[in-house]
Amino acid sequence: MSAGLSVPALAQTIHSPGNKLTLSFQLSPSGEPTYQLHFGAKTVVNTSKLGLLLQNQPGLDQGFQVARIDSTVHDATWQPVWGEVKNIRNHYKELAVTLAQPAANGHRMVLRFRLFDDGVGFRYEVPQQPGLTYFVVQDEKTEFNLPANHKAFWIPGDYDSNEYAYTTSRLSEVNTTPIKAIEKKAAPTRIQTPLMLKSDDGLYVNIHEAALVNYSAMMLNVDTKTFGLTSQLVPDATGTGAKAYLQAPEHTPWRTIVVSNKAPEVLASKLILNLNEPSKVTDTGWIKPQKFVGVWWEMQVSKASWNYSDTTNIKLAGTEWNKLKPNGRHGATTANVKRYIDFAAAHHIPGVLVEGWNVGWEDWVGNWKEEVFDFVTPYPDFDVNELQRYAASKGVNIIMHHETSGSVTNYERRQDAAYRFMNEHGYTSVKTGYVGRIIPRGEHHDGQWMVNHYVRTAQKTADSHIMVDMHEPVRPTGLHRTYPNWLACEAARGNEFNAFSEGNLPEHETILPFTRLMGGPMDYTPGIFKLQGYAASAPQRQVHTTLAKQLALYVTMYSPLQMAADLPENYNEHLDAFRFIEDVPVDWDDTRIVAAEPGDYLTIARQAKGKNEWYVGSITDEKARTQTVKLDFLTPGTTYEATIYADGKGASWDKNPTAYQIRKQKVNSKTTLKLQLAAGGGAAVSIKPAGK
Amino acid sequence: MSAGLSVPALAQTIHSPGNKLTLSFQLSPSGEPTYQLHFGAKTVVNTSKLGLLLQNQPGLDQGFQVARIDSTVHDATWQPVWGEVKNIRNHYKELAVTLAQPAANGHRMVLRFRLFDDGVGFRYEVPQQPGLTYFVVQDEKTEFNLPANHKAFWIPGDYDSNEYAYTTSRLSEVNTTPIKAIEKKAAPTRIQTPLMLKSDDGLYVNIHEAALVNYSAMMLNVDTKTFGLTSQLVPDATGTGAKAYLQAPEHTPWRTIVVSNKAPEVLASKLILNLNEPSKVTDTGWIKPQKFVGVWWEMQVSKASWNYSDTTNIKLAGTEWNKLKPNGRHGATTANVKRYIDFAAAHHIPGVLVEGWNVGWEDWVGNWKEEVFDFVTPYPDFDVNELQRYAASKGVNIIMHHETSGSVTNYERRQDAAYRFMNEHGYTSVKTGYVGRIIPRGEHHDGQWMVNHYVRTAQKTADSHIMVDMHEPVRPTGLHRTYPNWLACEAARGNEFNAFSEGNLPEHETILPFTRLMGGPMDYTPGIFKLQGYAASAPQRQVHTTLAKQLALYVTMYSPLQMAADLPENYNEHLDAFRFIEDVPVDWDDTRIVAAEPGDYLTIARQAKGKNEWYVGSITDEKARTQTVKLDFLTPGTTYEATIYADGKGASWDKNPTAYQIRKQKVNSKTTLKLQLAAGGGAAVSIKPAGK
Repeated sequence: MSAGLSVPALAQTIHSPGNKLTLSFQLSPSGEPTYQLHFGAKTVVNTSKLGLLLQNQPGLDQGFQVARIDSTVHDATWQPVWGEVKNIRNHYKELAVTLAQPAANGHRMVLRFRLFDDGVGFRYEVPQQPGLTYFVVQDEKTEFNLPANHKAFWIPGDYDSNEYAYTTSRLSEVNTTPIKAIEKKAAPTRIQTPLMLKSDDGLYVNIHEAALVNYSAMMLNVDTKTFGLTSQLVPDATGTGAKAYLQAPEHTPWRTIVVSNKAPEVLASKLILNLNEPSKVTDTGWIKPQKFVGVWWEMQVSKASWNYSDTTNIKLAGTEWNKLKPNGRHGATTANVKRYIDFAAAHHIPGVLVEGWNVGWEDWVGNWKEEVFDFVTPYPDFDVNELQRYAASKGVNIIMHHETSGSVTNYERRQDAAYRFMNEHGYTSVKTGYVGRIIPRGEHHDGQWMVNHYVRTAQKTADSHIMVDMHEPVRPTGLHRTYPNWLACEAARGNEFNAFSEGNLPEHETILPFTRLMGGPMDYTPGIFKLQGYAASAPQRQVHTTLAKQLALYVTMYSPLQMAADLPENYNEHLDAFRFIEDVPVDWDDTRIVAAEPGDYLTIARQAKGKNEWYVGSITDEKARTQTVKLDFLTPGTTYEATIYADGKGASWDKNPTAYQIRKQKVNSKTTLKLQLAAGGGAAVSIKPAGK
Repeated sequence: MSAGLSVPALAQTIHSPGNKLTLSFQLSPSGEPTYQLHFGAKTVVNTSKLGLLLQNQPGLDQGFQVARIDSTVHDATWQPVWGEVKNIRNHYKELAVTLAQPAANGHRMVLRFRLFDDGVGFRYEVPQQPGLTYFVVQDEKTEFNLPANHKAFWIPGDYDSNEYAYTTSRLSEVNTTPIKAIEKKAAPTRIQTPLMLKSDDGLYVNIHEAALVNYSAMMLNVDTKTFGLTSQLVPDATGTGAKAYLQAPEHTPWRTIVVSNKAPEVLASKLILNLNEPSKVTDTGWIKPQKFVGVWWEMQVSKASWNYSDTTNIKLAGTEWNKLKPNGRHGATTANVKRYIDFAAAHHIPGVLVEGWNVGWEDWVGNWKEEVFDFVTPYPDFDVNELQRYAASKGVNIIMHHETSGSVTNYERRQDAAYRFMNEHGYTSVKTGYVGRIIPRGEHHDGQWMVNHYVRTAQKTADSHIMVDMHEPVRPTGLHRTYPNWLACEAARGNEFNAFSEGNLPEHETILPFTRLMGGPMDYTPGIFKLQGYAASAPQRQVHTTLAKQLALYVTMYSPLQMAADLPENYNEHLDAFRFIEDVPVDWDDTRIVAAEPGDYLTIARQAKGKNEWYVGSITDEKARTQTVKLDFLTPGTTYEATIYADGKGASWDKNPTAYQIRKQKVNSKTTLKLQLAAGGGAAVSIKPAGK
């Protein structure tokens, strides 16, 4: 359909392909764009305004007339390079509203909505047009006016960190003030996306964004009285409040609302992936989802150090590293790395991450220093060539580590040389890190400049056939569809917090899939087996989990890149349990969200890529629970053997975390498994055709 | 000598090696460091305070006691890789005062003074010490309290540009408000260095800095009532007023005061070079001072364009350049570049600069856009390989051009690839440009981050055996001693302003050597022969010079890199005059400042490197003058032939600029040349042994 100018425009209403959702667009009497979203008869979003404010020129937020309306249906199925399912259906109704501002030189903007059965995505598009070529977004005023005081799972709107525990509260109670800021102090009611909401009338609503490219990240300001949310973009370094420097034709990322009356359907949604562009990497044969171990947890628990020496006040260019006095605790020594390579080879783990291999760790963080690392110079006790030879002889890849210390200008200057070094020395993956305040000074982790850096790095690593895992970047928005070599990100509070802080509550891993993981895989680093007494400096510290739950996380916390994070010596104490980590895939043909409730529990079953094997993970919060899993996804008529790794008798995260039991049983498509989860516990199950 | 603690310390007084200057250091009763400088009995600087203020910690500006005093004499002679003289004597008395703050954890700072017969340099040094490792300079409070209301030659304290005409006024009259800002609006009484001053009692005083590395540039705030000057460092992007992020041990640049009762001695001073570090480039055989022509002035006068197409709204990554519609005015075509190569080869000019060869010029400036140029992709009509072959066959080098449009992050990402491209395609020199607002956004051309960029670029080009000429950088501070591949900078108002603006007054080139050139060579681009009717869009415009003066500038405006800036067709009209440009060297064994008065006139004689040949340049402001030159520097007993390129009868910059006469005469060491300079005119003389 198509319509001429109309002031005020009649509401344009579209329905999702299966009629579950209804979206209405309407201009206000003053020409402000607004929308509403309904799930059946229930209101998801009340009338909410849309608009962009521009720096030093009239905003794209009012005075609009409708110039044109286009509506189409799209239905196609595509296959990701790797993922939770083999095929993804992309089925939506699209409404594209072209708006014009007669009083502002006829400036045009397109609002494009894509309405799926499980949610909506919409974005602002500024077409090529006279008088609006280069412009600066001063603010985006996208509203999500919620109809009631929903329960929310939120973290503070820190422009530089996502590494917070989730607070569960009513919207009216959102207050970040008591929460200790990690990087920058957040505003009292500014929170981050993905934001998970639950209404009293049983709707699960998730608000986030898709395809964050060349723009700053969207946070949300909560009106605790009206339950309205308003977008808050991350500003740049100029102090002018500039949010994005754009050149038409250009568009914003998609603003996404996933909605269902069933929590599992939120987790199963592929809406965010569908709103991202197809892969820009054409030859993908070199991209390999993988598990890895690494010289890492021993530093987290202070058994070893990243730094080679305890001499501080180091200058990258002026230090003779081989003259420094070694501290005797350096983790990334040739001998220690070989120990990990041996363990990985013995247990069919393809990767070994090594942190602290390169010079600069003596005083690497907290000084806002530009020249910290060079990414190519090993410490004197790390023999690059010998380890390249040794790893290759064992069929293991060493994973490169590039900690930038937030000094991104320094990293960018050296990226070409660093990736050349990787190619020359057999490294196929890199873990990057952005700990600390960003250089260019004044820029934020989540601002446009850094967003462009992450995307550029994904492209740059792809050009060198390198897979990348980013720590401390902006939280993902589904760009792993476009850059399938961008395997994972951290961008949340990972398992590591159990090593150096008060840790993560048992509920944490039941919330993450509904929040952070909506945008993409997380390198959570599960698999801690020694759950007490691991931190020499804090002997009372423990991980808020049972051992069996750590196994379950390999299924519930989807990632194509999964670390077995604990030390080889701790795994050697429980090699029967480690067998699950050996077995569990990192790439899947199918996924069933069996049961889920954010903050409470989560059970997921997944079919291994190209195999008739299934894996089940089930986790709970601090409450013991029974979870039942109907195995009706198994091939009818086939008998399978299930190996069940469950919490042992008397297990609980706080009193007895390492009690587990492993039992085998024959199952088929008619079996219902009953899994007993301890407090803070979980269960992991592998299901393979019997007799194989 | 050495002394223990003393509060208040007795004044420490030192005399320069030849007793011309006296410097006194003393702590004030509250422990503030102060100094005074005298030239004989005349006061150069009255008691003036010194100090650094630090961010978030006690300043290094008061509460000091003297912990130690060291005094030494240094006398050595060194040879620059290229320059105005063959040998440079570095002769000074040094006073190093170690200060300690008992009330601030014993923090220490060293004030190091080097007193020469022609001035003083001093700097702040923060030694390695407990509790003061990483620190941020919030402000430097260095005072230069002048004893009277001197005449000053000044430009506004713009943090992003030096491209201003000089104002000559009393200090009491300094007011930048009426001056049109080029980049950022300057504060009303903030001016730049090098600042040239002349006292009513006949002292010439120049204030600047030497060895600006890892620090922001120093500007000066003028107290128009007391005639006190106070240092004003350029702030960074954070908005916190941070001026420099430092790590001890570290020191500031040297603050320099050159002083004499004879103006020529200011120009002859090597104080700033002496305060710089020796060359970091060990193999210097590839560094070649040189003259060049180029595809450049034709764009300045709008005969040709940098851009290939007139299509605007270009995106670097998304544009198919060979599908753009050519505008037919593109300067950097293969054919046109060959024309310049032919001219250069015919006239023994080694270099041909080509601007506008690479894609991105369609809308390259003014948009604060990050991805403007890639530095490796030629326009469709510029054949890199063919021109490489052709230039080599003619014995000519093409000079690379890297305009960054101020987008320095983009340039830094691409520098490795750009220099590799240059090495592969036979380019040995690059002219860089920084037009427009800097990215990282919020940083300034003259701030610490950019200062580090320029120095890093000097080192990086040296590593690739590339000579560099920087346009729109911070003004030089003698770093060409340390990086002799850093041949020249613009960083001032060059000849180009005669093409696109109201131009430079005749006095301009008599002031530049006393100001901007104190820090290092300038790529002024002299040699314009067509002085009227060159600018199609402004037919009345003319260069404020005679043709003969343009020749004289090759001697008076020292640079190892000198452009013959006009078009081949304009030179072909005056090939007899062009002969001087062909002959004149760019590297010298000796230099005599024959006569000089800032703003009025300047006569310099120089001996060609390794040859018994001399060249004289003499220029005047808007007044006609007679200048006499005693040729007593010639080898006694030898007869030379002098070729004198002088203003012709009736010549004047405004009425008859191209009237010139060329005459030859025999001269010897007893000859006195009398040069008649027209209004806005000059004279150039080459003197070679007769009969050769």
